[in-house]
Amino acid sequence: MDIVAELLNGSKLAISRAITTVENEYDEATEIMQKIYPNTGKAYVIGITGPPGAGKSTLTDKITKEYRSRGKSVGIIAVDPSSPFSGGAILGDRIRMNELTMDDGVFIRSMATRGSLGGMSRKTAEVVKILDAAGKDIVIIETVGVGQSEVDIVKTADTTLVVLVPGLGDDIQAIKAGILEIGDVFAINKADREGVERLNLEMEMMLDLDQSETAWRPKIMRTVASQNQGVVELVDAIEDHSTFLTQSGMLEKHRFERTRNEILAMLDEAIKIYLMKKVAGSKFESLTTEVNERKNDPYSAVKSVLSEVLK
Amino acid sequence: MDIVAELLNGSKLAISRAITTVENEYDEATEIMQKIYPNTGKAYVIGITGPPGAGKSTLTDKITKEYRSRGKSVGIIAVDPSSPFSGGAILGDRIRMNELTMDDGVFIRSMATRGSLGGMSRKTAEVVKILDAAGKDIVIIETVGVGQSEVDIVKTADTTLVVLVPGLGDDIQAIKAGILEIGDVFAINKADREGVERLNLEMEMMLDLDQSETAWRPKIMRTVASQNQGVVELVDAIEDHSTFLTQSGMLEKHRFERTRNEILAMLDEAIKIYLMKKVAGSKFESLTTEVNERKNDPYSAVKSVLSEVLK
Repeated sequence: MDIVAELLNGSKLAISRAITTVENEYDEATEIMQKIYPNTGKAYVIGITGPPGAGKSTLTDKITKEYRSRGKSVGIIAVDPSSPFSGGAILGDRIRMNELTMDDGVFIRSMATRGSLGGMSRKTAEVVKILDAAGKDIVIIETVGVGQSEVDIVKTADTTLVVLVPGLGDDIQAIKAGILEIGDVFAINKADREGVERLNLEMEMMLDLDQSETAWRPKIMRTVASQNQGVVELVDAIEDHSTFLTQSGMLEKHRFERTRNEILAMLDEAIKIYLMKKVAGSKFESLTTEVNERKNDPYSAVKSVLSEVLK
Repeated sequence: MDIVAELLNGSKLAISRAITTVENEYDEATEIMQKIYPNTGKAYVIGITGPPGAGKSTLTDKITKEYRSRGKSVGIIAVDPSSPFSGGAILGDRIRMNELTMDDGVFIRSMATRGSLGGMSRKTAEVVKILDAAGKDIVIIETVGVGQSEVDIVKTADTTLVVLVPGLGDDIQAIKAGILEIGDVFAINKADREGVERLNLEMEMMLDLDQSETAWRPKIMRTVASQNQGVVELVDAIEDHSTFLTQSGMLEKHRFERTRNEILAMLDEAIKIYLMKKVAGSKFESLTTEVNERKNDPYSAVKSVLSEVLK
């Protein structure tokens, strides 16, 4: 099977195989990514994050159905970078229970890998490209939890949707502070619960405090995903943000910056690998021993390795 | 003032200044760190993490008092890597409300910086060294929240104490999965609350599932920090772990590995800085433009930069 040709044709099997190749870092991964790269940059990428229990999965499904009814194909990547133990199970359920898998215009894939943070967001970005090249109009990155790693991952999206829920208590509310700054659109989900007005007000106040000078003020929408309430309006809000980005030239600007950061991250990774090979030998071990025994200090050790490695 | 000499004498002012130097990445930071490095490696480092609301700060204070009554001096670093907004306020309270600041054998410092994750754990490790060189017998790293970044930070500790609390609900319980594997000692705090038996049982079951073959089985202790209950026993458990590490040779092994990882992290950082300088020019911008416009792919771009930079 010619994975690249089939993938560009939108074959689910080819998409699956390409993702597996990237996930497991098989040798052919780079070649595939290199070949499909010219066909990327067309999909609109939506990142969805928020605390556990906010109903992100259900909302993602409803958003996907709404996009389907608007004639768009959708790729979904469910990512769980933080919990190596629980992750698999949660994501397993996520896939099993999903009727969307029957729809040919939808591709769903979960990713839950041990391994480095950087690796995870790099891999997510590559899976986005695979779905993009395969012709998906919309690619949704859905995170299981919320944290720095999730923030890093959704940063690769064009529009970030932050899902909140009333009445999760002060501990969870505290988390909001960190994710407020990344949201372009907010969904207060389970909006039939008590506390929705208070949460809405708090959110508005926090947005008022935001000093950043972008012309886009994040929209706060209310949804009851389980009953499909507010989903059309939510997708409209996402589309409004998309239109804003396109017309203001910020979409292009952001994507340029992301390309830049991506190349830098890849450089960093490549250098790390080079470094590991270069210093893997006994010389580095004896250097470490010297430092560990306080016969040398790490700063001088770093200097001496650098002089060997860099031009 | 000769910061290094004063610091090695244990001067609070010198410690403070040295930390500020490291935090703000002043030029003299490396020189100070290099000079004090031979005097490090003596302190025993304890990492304390757990979900918000578990009572980590109160417990840290009680543990500190217990160590003081055992004749040990203590340095405390309260770290909040994840919430740039709320962090300052929380940590401000942490310091203000603390009577320990009056004790000459205790030094408390909070760190809440924007900036990269890697940077934060690197800086925390340097502050540990400062307190170590200043003669603190025990250095406690206390995190405000729990997440991948906190996990990375407490990984630099000899003993990791994970603080849990009964009845925080399923969302928070789910977080446990990720921190279970890093705990050497667990404290079920607020153990006068309902649900303590269930949490204890759950924890034991999770530990039974743990396949790793270390001879140390994490201890689960119960505390009511606000009433100073169970703190003596908790500190005993930490000391048991310390004795285990020392006698089994694992303390030395772990510290060697940490030295290794530290040098690698520093190398990585140094190369990143070198790279940023080297590629900051217009050539890199035009390369990014080519990639962004799909006239080139990021993999080839990375290759061409590497060939310029590496020996």
